[in-house]
Amino acid sequence: MRKAAIIGVGMHPFGKFLNYSLEDMARVAVWNAIEDAGLPPKDIQVAYVANSLAGLVTGQEGVRGQIILRDAGLSGMPIINVENACASGTTALRGAWLEVASGLHDVALVLGVEKLFLPRTADSIEILAADSEIRLKNMGFQFTAWYAMELRRYMKKYGWNVVDFAKVVEKNSQNGSLNPYAMHRTPLTVEQVLDSRVVAEPLRLYMCSSMSDGAAAAIICNKGRARKYTGRPLIEISTCVLRSGMFMNPRDTNRTGITRLAANEAYEQAGLGPESIDVAEVHDAMSPSELYHYEDLGFCAEGEGPSMIEQGRTKLGGDIPVNPSGGLSARGHPIAATGLAQVAEIVWQLRGEAGPRQVSQAQVGLIENSGGIVEDDAAAASITILKR
Amino acid sequence: MRKAAIIGVGMHPFGKFLNYSLEDMARVAVWNAIEDAGLPPKDIQVAYVANSLAGLVTGQEGVRGQIILRDAGLSGMPIINVENACASGTTALRGAWLEVASGLHDVALVLGVEKLFLPRTADSIEILAADSEIRLKNMGFQFTAWYAMELRRYMKKYGWNVVDFAKVVEKNSQNGSLNPYAMHRTPLTVEQVLDSRVVAEPLRLYMCSSMSDGAAAAIICNKGRARKYTGRPLIEISTCVLRSGMFMNPRDTNRTGITRLAANEAYEQAGLGPESIDVAEVHDAMSPSELYHYEDLGFCAEGEGPSMIEQGRTKLGGDIPVNPSGGLSARGHPIAATGLAQVAEIVWQLRGEAGPRQVSQAQVGLIENSGGIVEDDAAAASITILKR
Repeated sequence: MRKAAIIGVGMHPFGKFLNYSLEDMARVAVWNAIEDAGLPPKDIQVAYVANSLAGLVTGQEGVRGQIILRDAGLSGMPIINVENACASGTTALRGAWLEVASGLHDVALVLGVEKLFLPRTADSIEILAADSEIRLKNMGFQFTAWYAMELRRYMKKYGWNVVDFAKVVEKNSQNGSLNPYAMHRTPLTVEQVLDSRVVAEPLRLYMCSSMSDGAAAAIICNKGRARKYTGRPLIEISTCVLRSGMFMNPRDTNRTGITRLAANEAYEQAGLGPESIDVAEVHDAMSPSELYHYEDLGFCAEGEGPSMIEQGRTKLGGDIPVNPSGGLSARGHPIAATGLAQVAEIVWQLRGEAGPRQVSQAQVGLIENSGGIVEDDAAAASITILKR
Repeated sequence: MRKAAIIGVGMHPFGKFLNYSLEDMARVAVWNAIEDAGLPPKDIQVAYVANSLAGLVTGQEGVRGQIILRDAGLSGMPIINVENACASGTTALRGAWLEVASGLHDVALVLGVEKLFLPRTADSIEILAADSEIRLKNMGFQFTAWYAMELRRYMKKYGWNVVDFAKVVEKNSQNGSLNPYAMHRTPLTVEQVLDSRVVAEPLRLYMCSSMSDGAAAAIICNKGRARKYTGRPLIEISTCVLRSGMFMNPRDTNRTGITRLAANEAYEQAGLGPESIDVAEVHDAMSPSELYHYEDLGFCAEGEGPSMIEQGRTKLGGDIPVNPSGGLSARGHPIAATGLAQVAEIVWQLRGEAGPRQVSQAQVGLIENSGGIVEDDAAAASITILKR
């Protein structure tokens, strides 16, 4: 396969935008990406559109991407609508990468967009609930409960505690305060986090990512043709690995959860290891989960997540900054848009365009994006490695 | 890109199956395809799952493929959920083809599954209506109305008449009577078709495809490895072209609808022309549309569709049989499953396994699958060419 590079990224801010539609937000993200790439839009040969919940939000189940891109003034190319819950964004990226890397096309557009806030709050809640109907209706089970149980396992096994968890939020909220696209831009102290209400012990409110509206987009180009469009640093997609299955199996002592499996596969395909990663965006749907993502990604040994935070290794200025964007807890989590916001952040970091949250000398970045039903073998995890 | 072949196909019958879930039907189609390919299921490296309406049918918007395949006993591989309305099935096929042709994977599973019949009829209707909310709610506009207007344009311009349209149904119903997977297996006469009730002038009820439940699946394999699994004829995917945009623009005298554009692109990529096609499955959501699909596919000149039927050229035994399966009007139309049922039919035809509806000596087959909002630049059309 030939080399593909990301030559443009664009976002619509994440937040609560009651008066903005999917189309409104998508248009901004797509045109920001097109302008960033310096691309005549007619050169886009194929588009991947990720959205998870519009069928329930607007009732428009079919051809979502066609409707959304038409509104942005784009049509005529093949449009592929993809879904993979919270991992939808990088699933779309992977598709676009394959189009270009295979040689089928030279330029691909990727868009992730999500609308969760509706004028009647009850409608938003119903939509989120329906998304995991079986669990919620039949078992009263939710994401927060699963994360809480997983964290309690770590607390018992390795002595992790709720202060460790609050420190992750402290770090990410500081990063998020520097990100103009983030939903929450107020730095939080450990005390503030601990004082926020308990959602599911040990999770406090500020440890949980917020529902959000938003959009993010990227332009992928055959690397050999990319200089036709842009003088900026070309950000090569080393690999984009997707797995489905189970995040973690409590009975499994060999740690074969899909995040770890995907990370190992990605490192092998990219021909590098965790020590080469200069900056990472990880899927902290609940901020404390960042701690065991460190393990899954090989940044530390099992059980050592809290010491990474304690030593400041993953903060801005540390040896491997994680979630310089603020992560999901600060940026907000508009489901299918999240993965591409992670991608945009790493692209800005590798280009040296991240302003006050810039990681110095970043050459290699990693994105971990995951989603789906957390137990029961119905999840998706993806690892993307980008290189300047 | 390297060569990819379809080494297995499988279906669940199309029809009204009130007691069967998406999972029930998918399991049958997937395992039929796996058995047909002679493949150990563990060799499947990636899966594409097409479904259009389950978000509204069951409320399970996210990770549909994971839920459905887990129930069939399959997990661990990357699963990509794709949607493109009635063209979802071949959109999934195209993705799987790209995985294998690019060299990323050797074996891919493709599944299309749809559930439209619900115990309470009103629920089914509501789901179908919501699928094109804008049109239905704001304009009272439906697919049948669009097709009727398009056909009236042909009636005026070329003198086509309702008897020509009924003859297409006669042919397809005869073919469908020979297809054990078809929903409607009673051969219809021209008189019976004309006597069925008017849906939208000139369309009669029997000219319209029925809503349906069903599933269809295929196994795609690196052609160079395919002999490891099967001794059957290998059916190579010459190309699979997808376009989005407008089917037809009434003001457009240059005939740049996406079906024709996709067909021209497919012929060019496959290095052959319409004269090489031995058998075709076309997307006759309304049977008479088959007549102008003949034109779009280059089987006849503009306006000459009815003479193709009159001369018997597209019936079984003619020089280019179209819809030997019975097409959408006889087989039923479970949205995302339709494209892969078309693929299964062409695979059986090229292998010489189509029994009483076998087209003799078929070496090259074409599938035209399309969907989306028929006007307004938000449709999808795909052309797949398969070769023995």
